[in-house]
Amino acid sequence: MAEAKQLRSFVEVPAGSHFPIQNLPFGVFRRRGASASPPRPAVAIGDFALDLAAVADAGLFDGPVLSGSQCFHQETLNVFLGMGRLAWKEARATLQKILSADEPVLRDNEDLRKKCLVPMSDIEMLLPMKVGAYTDFFCSVHHARNCGFIFRGPQTPVNPNWFHLPVGYNGRASSVVVSGTDIIRPRGQGHPAANSRPYFGPSQKLDFELEMAAVVGPGNQLGKPIDINDAEEHIFGLVLMNDWSARDIQAWETIPLGPFLGKSFGTTISPWIVTLDALKPFTCEAPKQEPEPLPYLAERNHINYDISLEVRFCPYYILVTNFYRYWTVTQQLAHHTVNGCNMSPGDIFATGTLSGPEPESLGCLLELTWNGQKEIQVGNSTRKFLEDGDEVILTGCCKGEGYSIGFGACTGKVLPALP
Amino acid sequence: MAEAKQLRSFVEVPAGSHFPIQNLPFGVFRRRGASASPPRPAVAIGDFALDLAAVADAGLFDGPVLSGSQCFHQETLNVFLGMGRLAWKEARATLQKILSADEPVLRDNEDLRKKCLVPMSDIEMLLPMKVGAYTDFFCSVHHARNCGFIFRGPQTPVNPNWFHLPVGYNGRASSVVVSGTDIIRPRGQGHPAANSRPYFGPSQKLDFELEMAAVVGPGNQLGKPIDINDAEEHIFGLVLMNDWSARDIQAWETIPLGPFLGKSFGTTISPWIVTLDALKPFTCEAPKQEPEPLPYLAERNHINYDISLEVRFCPYYILVTNFYRYWTVTQQLAHHTVNGCNMSPGDIFATGTLSGPEPESLGCLLELTWNGQKEIQVGNSTRKFLEDGDEVILTGCCKGEGYSIGFGACTGKVLPALP
Ligand SMILES: [Ca+2]
Ligand SMILES: [Ca+2]
Ligand SMILES: [Mg+2]
Ligand SMILES: [Mg+2]
Ligand code: NI
Repeated sequence: MAEAKQLRSFVEVPAGSHFPIQNLPFGVFRRRGASASPPRPAVAIGDFALDLAAVADAGLFDGPVLSGSQCFHQETLNVFLGMGRLAWKEARATLQKILSADEPVLRDNEDLRKKCLVPMSDIEMLLPMKVGAYTDFFCSVHHARNCGFIFRGPQTPVNPNWFHLPVGYNGRASSVVVSGTDIIRPRGQGHPAANSRPYFGPSQKLDFELEMAAVVGPGNQLGKPIDINDAEEHIFGLVLMNDWSARDIQAWETIPLGPFLGKSFGTTISPWIVTLDALKPFTCEAPKQEPEPLPYLAERNHINYDISLEVRFCPYYILVTNFYRYWTVTQQLAHHTVNGCNMSPGDIFATGTLSGPEPESLGCLLELTWNGQKEIQVGNSTRKFLEDGDEVILTGCCKGEGYSIGFGACTGKVLPALP
Repeated sequence: MAEAKQLRSFVEVPAGSHFPIQNLPFGVFRRRGASASPPRPAVAIGDFALDLAAVADAGLFDGPVLSGSQCFHQETLNVFLGMGRLAWKEARATLQKILSADEPVLRDNEDLRKKCLVPMSDIEMLLPMKVGAYTDFFCSVHHARNCGFIFRGPQTPVNPNWFHLPVGYNGRASSVVVSGTDIIRPRGQGHPAANSRPYFGPSQKLDFELEMAAVVGPGNQLGKPIDINDAEEHIFGLVLMNDWSARDIQAWETIPLGPFLGKSFGTTISPWIVTLDALKPFTCEAPKQEPEPLPYLAERNHINYDISLEVRFCPYYILVTNFYRYWTVTQQLAHHTVNGCNMSPGDIFATGTLSGPEPESLGCLLELTWNGQKEIQVGNSTRKFLEDGDEVILTGCCKGEGYSIGFGACTGKVLPALP
């Protein structure tokens, strides 16, 4: 970490920025307005996006894997994601070099700098990849315990399978949207009152879920599971995720096949993918697992990442938590493919709601208000569930010595339901 | 139907063929061997595939929508699916005309005929479209009742929500494969025996599920539901589907978020999409629904299709059923999008297991053997669940006056699990 601390860019990085030279998260942007351009891959540095197609055109990707590659002349990151860790490491090394304070190639070439460094105020961020598949897991024991308590009572809040496998389900990939996209309150059915028909109308229990999602790299062929100790090679990085949930729709539809329309109206991810390489200084021990996981889930390198997470309803803090999970991302991926299921570049799989042990570290309103049985204070107002106009802002950050590795923000505003 | 009966092609169609001129299902093929070609769209006619790129190159698509279109110069049908019913109707009318016995343009042009009509023995069929999303429903009341009985007992075999909405869940699109693809027996966890760890190994309860799936056309934008009375415009046609299921993996993982790895190791669809237009003569009244569906599910044209379905373990018949569903495909689509969920061309949604009311019309081994409690006879052998080497063959057919509209076959063979 001494090295990481000393790295410095010639691009000015404001104090507290999420995007110092140590981070360099990948995304896809488009210039706004008159100079509107097709979508292009970039990394974030301070308040700028570094245009990777422009960097490639200048011949600066001169390593053995990326020189001559068209991977950054694409409208998404999928091709680059599919190239794997050798390409990712080479890209990161090249970019840290050309952005460093000591390196003249960009620093001293004003024309090239103007081509490559685009102020964030001039761009909009797009989905960084085509999301072919989206899986949601259920990896926080605090969340699992609270949900079980709320819906099934105190006898067996956590199901017997939970400590043996990362419980997950298929989400809807088509409605994954990028931060900043408005979310229309969904309509749907809810439990009937006694002797009546089911409720139909705008969801009355709209919720957020604070999650993170892993972005898949090369992936695997159908029928060829990914070994647990190889799983890290298939994970490019992490994003913040808000898994918007309509609790009333979900509760009524979910028996016996799981969540469906209560979740598929929108799932928001942050635009910058923070790489596992950038997160390396922030690894920490993952929770000890008891009972011992089955061999296909037992990993040599059982780690977690120390990521502080926050949710605000602009501008009020609602909760503060961490990247609390019982199951690691590598265990999730090994489990996901153990039956032969194939994963492709750009697929995402999420952690599930990242609730912590404290009352103020619960990752959704379902838990914070105990399914609407109590209210939480939000500034001068209160909430049981989300109201129209609410803007939910997720942020995440790792604090290093003298710098932070951040995820930016994952935001979305609730619009009224259709008439 | 008088007209349909009289339609006749100059291409010889063997008696009992699934593919007379009245059908013309769409698929994607590739020539085998030395003359291997890139994938191309086609319709089936007798024992031939009619190459639609070759038809387009000959200038025979001369209607207002398709003339000059590149929709058949594609490796999948997604572009054509996205063009909607006007394009579909025009393609069907053009193809029925140029294939009819009275029309000389192809009939009397040997060169062109050789370019356009490819013997099925010379081709392999591919997935007809890129499947962006796959949803599975649970629309047969017989299947719902039997599953409820087997897993929860006789008190309330059908859940209270079942008669109010088409219950469904997100499947895994990446593992949807075309008929003929081998299925590797999945490995996974099963319920622990008393006081032991969970079982891990090859699934011991591998099953098939006889289903059909609808193929989505234009679809909708996020936040804009498809109206029930407009839903038919968004459904191109139907395919047979085998939703392979590992009952032991499914049973252990499914609480509380639904089926996941017990289903995601492979789902087989038949290669030829039979259009709703071809199925029109075989519409019949859909079951009366009680209680009356909510307004968003109440449709002016509440119809089903009379499709005979069979499953064989080559060469033995296992079951014979029909397209039994309580919920129609249009109701499924209206429900799927009522919350704003977006559908895209090539998405599929399946009926769920199509069990009928008779003991010999149950659509999976789970029901036929009552979860392995009894055996069924298969030739000189018996089965509780699938054994390695078993080849499961689904077929479907509508019998008209003097012709049949068939779906071909949906086949898959079980290979042993990985060591
Ligand atoms: Ca979730
Ligand atoms: Ca099924
Ligand atoms: Mg969601
Ligand atoms: Mg399946
Ligand atoms: Ni007739």
